[in-house]
Order: sequence, then structure tokens, then C-alpha cells
Amino acid sequence: MKREHKVMMKARSRNIWLRVAYDGTDYHGFQRQMPPVTAIQNVLEEALERVCGELIELTASGRTDAGVHARGQIVNFFTSSAIPVDRLPAVVNNFLPGSIAVTGAGEGDEYFSALHSPHDKTYSYWIREMEDFFDPFLARYSWQVKERLDVVPMQQAADLLVGEQDFSAFRSAGSNEQGDPVKNIYEARLTRQGRDIRFFISANGFLYHMVRNIVGTLAKVGTGKMTVEEFAAAIEGKNRSLLPTMAPANGLCLESVFYPGYPEIKADSNRSH
Amino acid sequence: MKREHKVMMKARSRNIWLRVAYDGTDYHGFQRQMPPVTAIQNVLEEALERVCGELIELTASGRTDAGVHARGQIVNFFTSSAIPVDRLPAVVNNFLPGSIAVTGAGEGDEYFSALHSPHDKTYSYWIREMEDFFDPFLARYSWQVKERLDVVPMQQAADLLVGEQDFSAFRSAGSNEQGDPVKNIYEARLTRQGRDIRFFISANGFLYHMVRNIVGTLAKVGTGKMTVEEFAAAIEGKNRSLLPTMAPANGLCLESVFYPGYPEIKADSNRSH
Repeated sequence: MKREHKVMMKARSRNIWLRVAYDGTDYHGFQRQMPPVTAIQNVLEEALERVCGELIELTASGRTDAGVHARGQIVNFFTSSAIPVDRLPAVVNNFLPGSIAVTGAGEGDEYFSALHSPHDKTYSYWIREMEDFFDPFLARYSWQVKERLDVVPMQQAADLLVGEQDFSAFRSAGSNEQGDPVKNIYEARLTRQGRDIRFFISANGFLYHMVRNIVGTLAKVGTGKMTVEEFAAAIEGKNRSLLPTMAPANGLCLESVFYPGYPEIKADSNRSH
Repeated sequence: MKREHKVMMKARSRNIWLRVAYDGTDYHGFQRQMPPVTAIQNVLEEALERVCGELIELTASGRTDAGVHARGQIVNFFTSSAIPVDRLPAVVNNFLPGSIAVTGAGEGDEYFSALHSPHDKTYSYWIREMEDFFDPFLARYSWQVKERLDVVPMQQAADLLVGEQDFSAFRSAGSNEQGDPVKNIYEARLTRQGRDIRFFISANGFLYHMVRNIVGTLAKVGTGKMTVEEFAAAIEGKNRSLLPTMAPANGLCLESVFYPGYPEIKADSNRSH
């Protein structure tokens, strides 16, 4: 069965990639779920099936968890549909709810895979220092914290993340991911505008819950509950009292995926908020 | 029954007002609905009942429709609870979902009514000129339009709204509102920042769907489909071909309510987006 299925998919001559933006709040993550649970993948595949007139199976650059957003998720699929690739986003968007939008499309060669082709990813995380009250208009997109955060030691701590290291200390248990815990972080940068603190992190790969564990731990540094030296020890993972704390899903956004072989795939970094 | 109920409410000695912010997207408007339909009022009253330990009946400055937001909706209720009014917002917020927040509270005299005490209201409406694609992160809060809008004639048209006039032309049918169609608009102002156009309108009252009909019609002026002279004729309501077009609910937000007798009630105009 599985092999026949693969043959069927390979018989389809076109390998199309899509760049996808979504508000993940109301979905059960990216990866396809059994109804009545709805994932981004279910909704996207259904829209593509209506456009292409055949069963569609998406491959994504990776899952995003429930509540996590994306501005530049990348997926690919094989199709025999003849629809021009430049018309595809607008046509597919007609079948998508307002919370999901295809923002780019192109054709790869038969070997391109959003998951398996080498790629780097950039995530952002938005922390908001609350005023007196929780802001309902930021509830979906930011982690609203009561404490004030000092970004200077947070950036010092973030600097320690850069480079090729074993990041097992920031991997959550309960994942069935068995990959290499050594990742190369190219950049880990904090910005502040008023009460909005944003964290950007780029790497050749991320472990399960890695960004949220990093952000939760950086926040401890920002409030003074952890020193930069303790953060260094937390990376080492040798002191269980310094275990990472996970930040909530809603502040996290997959900003872009960069495939060195396909530079045109990368999303512009136009930010809407 | 009705009379006994009123007596019961009057026996409660405290008349408390609350300032409330909400993301209206997932609610069936402000006004209480029968389950399983959920309105803001249902959720607020349930939270207050848990805090006050008695049945609570809210009076609001007015309804907001399904999908409409508020940063400064005002409600009042009578209670015999002794909870200090300055602690009330934080305590009530513990029982509210992230989409609703009480941002202020105070005590009025026994005659204060959020609905019946004289007041002015300010609404905002957010129009976003789309780039290539609909933006999922703005879907809940702005009207995303494909056209480019010229705010110069829009402001000229908006200027014609100011003053005391009969605004029947901008009232939607199907309302059971039988009030005076003459309202006094104090201000009708447009701002542009990049592709974001915001409209602010203040008046001593608004008719059913009035702001959305005004914005929809102003947008026609912005795209050149209607002249400023035709907008003037649309106010007069004498030419059926110039009938107002209603803008969608999601761009609309009740910013603040001002009660001349209670200046402390008015919300700060802190904007989160």
C-alpha cells in the first residue's frame, strides 16, 4: 500500500512549494489530525484538493504546536494539476478561512522536500510587559508578563546560545523526536520597543519545544531570578534546579524557512504586528 | 414579577460601573443570549456572580454587534457585595477568558445608568490596504481592502458629518431601535500610517449600524467610486443609488464612553494596536 501510494505520488509531475501564514490559535497545531479535531494541514489540504481536483498530501518544513503561528511556513506537494503556479496563492486563498493565507508559491525539482531538503529556520517570540491589565487584543499573539524584564542580561544569555552545541537541555520530554540534539544557532537576538520585547532565533534545526524553553529561561534571566552564569549552566543541563521553564505557545511564530538551494522560497520579513 | 425584580435590585445598596475591553470576534455581540450562544454579557455576568455571590444583571452603554470590539465599553450593576471597588477588576479578571478584561471600576450614585445617564461615545474603525495577500494576523481587527484609498476626499466627506443632523440615511433597516435619528457628531477624523487608515468618530449617540454604514460609504469616496458631493447627497438620503454600503464588523471598536457627570469613567486611550 505504502509503496503504491509513493508510486502514485511520483507519477504526478509537478512538485509545488507554498509559503503559508497562519494564526495558529484556533488550530490543533500544523500536523493533520483526525476530525473533529482540526489542524492547519487538514484545512490546507482540503483547499488544495478543491483547486487541484485530486488527493493532496502536504510535506511541511516541520510541525508547529497548537497555538503557534507562522508567517513563513513552507510546504510542498506533488500534483498533476496544470494550474499556473503564480495564480495558485490567490485561487487557494479563496478556499481558506481568514486565519490561513498562502503568500507565495513556486515549483521545485522532483527532489525538493520542505522537510528533508537542507534548511534553516527563523522563529520569533513576542513578550509583552503588561500594564495594569491583560490586553485582550494581544492575547493570541504575545506572552503577557506582569514582571519588568531587563533585556541586557537576557541578551548576554542569548549570546551564549550561538554556535554549534548540544541543546538537549532545552528539549522537552514526551517528544518522539529522536534526532541529533546538536544544532547550530546562527543568531539569537532581542529587541525592545516600549513594553514589547521580541526574540529572534535562527538555526539549522530546533528540538521539540526548544524555542519556548529558551524563552522561558531567558525570561527568568530578565527578571533576575537566574543569572547569566546560571543560564550557561542551564545550557549544560547539569543542574536540575536550573531546568528550563517553557514559555506559552501563543508568543511563538515561525517567521521563515531558508533553503540554500531555493533562495526564492524564503518569506519576506514583512511584519504585520 | 418584573416589579418585584426591580425592588430586589434597588435593595442592593451599591451601584458599580466597570470599564471593559473585549475582542468581540468569537462572541455573539454584547447583549445576553440564550445558551449555547455566548455573548460578552453572559460571560461577564457569570464572572461577576462568582465574585459577588449573587445574581448580577448588567446594564451596558449600548450593545455592540457580533464581531465588534471594545476598549472602553461601560456597564453598571447593583450589588450587595462588599468587595472593595479597587480590587474588583483584578478579581473579576481571574474568572474571565483572555478575550475579555475589566480595566477599571468605580461606584456611581443610585441614579447612574450606563445606558440612560447622558453620555458621548467614541468609536474607531480600522481599514487596512492589503498588500498582495490577506493578512491572517489582522483578520480579526481590521477591514482589509484591495483598493488604495485617498484619505483627502474621505476627510472632506467626513467633515460633512459633523454637527447635529438627521442620520437616518446611515441607519440599517431591521433594527427595533425607535430612537431619535437626529444625533450630534462632534468629531469625524481620519488618520493614515502607511497602509493603515483609522477613522475616529465621536457623537452623543449612534443609530443601528451607523458607523459601519458611514465607513463603507467613506471607503467608496476613498476609491473614487463616489464624489464628496455624492456623499453629501447620501447623508440627505434622497438618492437611492447612493445608498450606504456597510463595512464589516471586525474593524469597529467602541473606544470610550464619556459621562459628563462621571469624568473618571472614561477609558484612557491606550491603544494596543
